[in-house]
Amino acid sequence: MPVITLTTDFGTRDWFVGSMKGVILGLNPAAGIVDLTHEVPPGDIRSGAWALAAGCRDFPAGSIHVAVVDPGVGGARQAIAVRTARYRFIGPDNGLLALALRQEQVREVRRLTNQALFRLPLSRTFHGRDLFAPVAARLSAGLAFGRLGPPTKHYVELDFPEPRTARGVLEGAVVYLDRFGNALTNLSAQWLAGWELAACRVWVRGRVPCPFGESYGAVPEGKPVAVLGSTGRLEIALNRGSAAEALGIRVGDRVTIRRANRRVERGRGRPVVVRRGRRDGDLTF
Amino acid sequence: MPVITLTTDFGTRDWFVGSMKGVILGLNPAAGIVDLTHEVPPGDIRSGAWALAAGCRDFPAGSIHVAVVDPGVGGARQAIAVRTARYRFIGPDNGLLALALRQEQVREVRRLTNQALFRLPLSRTFHGRDLFAPVAARLSAGLAFGRLGPPTKHYVELDFPEPRTARGVLEGAVVYLDRFGNALTNLSAQWLAGWELAACRVWVRGRVPCPFGESYGAVPEGKPVAVLGSTGRLEIALNRGSAAEALGIRVGDRVTIRRANRRVERGRGRPVVVRRGRRDGDLTF
Amino acid sequence: MPVITLTTDFGTRDWFVGSMKGVILGLNPAAGIVDLTHEVPPGDIRSGAWALAAGCRDFPAGSIHVAVVDPGVGGARQAIAVRTARYRFIGPDNGLLALALRQEQVREVRRLTNQALFRLPLSRTFHGRDLFAPVAARLSAGLAFGRLGPPTKHYVELDFPEPRTARGVLEGAVVYLDRFGNALTNLSAQWLAGWELAACRVWVRGRVPCPFGESYGAVPEGKPVAVLGSTGRLEIALNRGSAAEALGIRVGDRVTIRRANRRVERGRGRPVVVRRGRRDGDLTF
Repeated sequence: MPVITLTTDFGTRDWFVGSMKGVILGLNPAAGIVDLTHEVPPGDIRSGAWALAAGCRDFPAGSIHVAVVDPGVGGARQAIAVRTARYRFIGPDNGLLALALRQEQVREVRRLTNQALFRLPLSRTFHGRDLFAPVAARLSAGLAFGRLGPPTKHYVELDFPEPRTARGVLEGAVVYLDRFGNALTNLSAQWLAGWELAACRVWVRGRVPCPFGESYGAVPEGKPVAVLGSTGRLEIALNRGSAAEALGIRVGDRVTIRRANRRVERGRGRPVVVRRGRRDGDLTF
Repeated sequence: MPVITLTTDFGTRDWFVGSMKGVILGLNPAAGIVDLTHEVPPGDIRSGAWALAAGCRDFPAGSIHVAVVDPGVGGARQAIAVRTARYRFIGPDNGLLALALRQEQVREVRRLTNQALFRLPLSRTFHGRDLFAPVAARLSAGLAFGRLGPPTKHYVELDFPEPRTARGVLEGAVVYLDRFGNALTNLSAQWLAGWELAACRVWVRGRVPCPFGESYGAVPEGKPVAVLGSTGRLEIALNRGSAAEALGIRVGDRVTIRRANRRVERGRGRPVVVRRGRRDGDLTF
Repeated sequence: MPVITLTTDFGTRDWFVGSMKGVILGLNPAAGIVDLTHEVPPGDIRSGAWALAAGCRDFPAGSIHVAVVDPGVGGARQAIAVRTARYRFIGPDNGLLALALRQEQVREVRRLTNQALFRLPLSRTFHGRDLFAPVAARLSAGLAFGRLGPPTKHYVELDFPEPRTARGVLEGAVVYLDRFGNALTNLSAQWLAGWELAACRVWVRGRVPCPFGESYGAVPEGKPVAVLGSTGRLEIALNRGSAAEALGIRVGDRVTIRRANRRVERGRGRPVVVRRGRRDGDLTF
């Protein structure tokens, strides 16, 4: 029996998540349901996409990932299901699934138009309960993917900052701040390949230097450190503290990596290239 | 195996909910447990009653709904179980179950007095763990309802504002603000029957007009809209925003529906009837 | 199939808890997982230890308790598993398990060094997912405890305030403030044995008197009361309110019990002994 995961912006103070689970269990009493998170900021598709992409990979093949951050519910946006080599994803077609799908091998996309699968009457404000939950429940109970609706080639992509390299500098951006105040970047393994990290230095906003470390404890308490985080991405952290708070980091902040050299070592707090007059904007996406 | 749902004001930062689940699983290892919500404001029986009533309906018949918002724990209040056509409800007899029971066909009410069913020694401060959880677990494992304790005809009702109609105006009230800032009213389907909603206008506090819409997106972003929400009730929302915040809505605020006419259209921001001197108080519950 | 409980400081807004569950279900699809709490303040080993100790006892024998509050993750701290008469505990060896273990009969302690059991490559920042979750999953699926790694005699203890008695006064401390503002103390059953509580008076910080009560409702609304809480410990509460807020109670505050007598009764608000010049410091730990 495949696991159904839920990623929403519904919070936990209302009954919305419970209602989704009630509908699922009504259709498949043996369903196993796991919360990925329900604390996506209301309507924040980008945060939801990131949480889904980061969390879905740790589930066994066959899992059904349901994501509902759906400010356009009841309007013109489509509802889709995507079958990949490992998983099935279900959600509104508003970009919410896009980051997760970049990591997977997409096999099949279908529009959820088969009303016979829904909880009827379909509300105009709560497709989490009336559309996505019952579809997930039926899939988990064995419904064939092809029954969901007509195939389509397209789904809505999400504009997401890509790292850039130029003149020996790798530049990325902060894409997520977690509960601990760690700042996760878009500098993932494939971008970091070939960089001797131990011989490099990381800069936040071109001004705050962070040494590389193998773990948070590689620097004294209260000091910033750049580590390879558990999502395989470069992460700015503070040993026993919040990097986001201590360094004032925000989503979108620029993070650059360059080989450490003597001039950088002397000019602590400001990378050499900036002094030479190269505009920061060159690398900004 | 029936689902057991939990609705409490215990929050999730302490171990209280975990303890309830531990007790349940100790008595019925196969129990399926679903959280409806644990974020009912501490001691707020009215909010808990609403969440339970709104969420319980989406669960399959046979489910056991446990609710614990219990400021009088350990005192004179009774503990009860109620069997309805579809569900069983368990909780303190302080009004917490009352709204849910209005939607169900009550078949049998029993006082939970059978100490043999409890976790002993019974604490005076945590009947969620010591009384309600074990009773729910035993019911889910097949215990006959009649074993719970003596039958009773009565349970504590909850004073809840009822809509009123007068002079072609339907007047209700805001009864719940959800995470998204949507303002749910007590104007449910049976009250709205016969009203041509598309030809009506909704007013919040007699002053803020809201057009009807079929979904949040029926109005431009940032604009208020009255929709039929997923609980079948009239709901004041804001497209891509929080109506509660933008309009300063509070629980108890008056919400009126009247046929839109030319004079109303001209007098935007203030309904005609109010100008004619009819006192708002006439319809206030 | 034993229950796996999770106690962490991961919060619920990120995907961390979901990732742990995904890993567990990948290794043991039949695992039952229960959240004790994920709202331990980040890095607060003491709070995590308390929550684990308070909550774990309500689970059936055989349960596997996983706790991860792990500011030293990826550094020199050991990872351990402890088998007791009733349970198995898994977590970092930083004191987090210590309070729970004081209540149990420890049978066997092992260091988690068997890499074949981990999710590889082992990250340096998320042993909850990569080490503790897979070990718990494998244990729940039947792995022999001895396979986890080499035995050890030692685990890190936690400095925890012990009550003291002197001159007919029992002195403890506030050790936890719960969601309701109840102040739980370290005055547990074995310390209270022999004290006629009904004939005593409780003082918070030597200044605020609280009568004993059998339940919160033993005093008028808004009044403080000392009750025997559900963890078997003395607890300072407020009937229908927050004692922590109303009385400004903090963790570490001194709580004393002494026999009530006439002089105390007259001198309400300040215990007699303090007036006689005995220094409060005498009993402070």
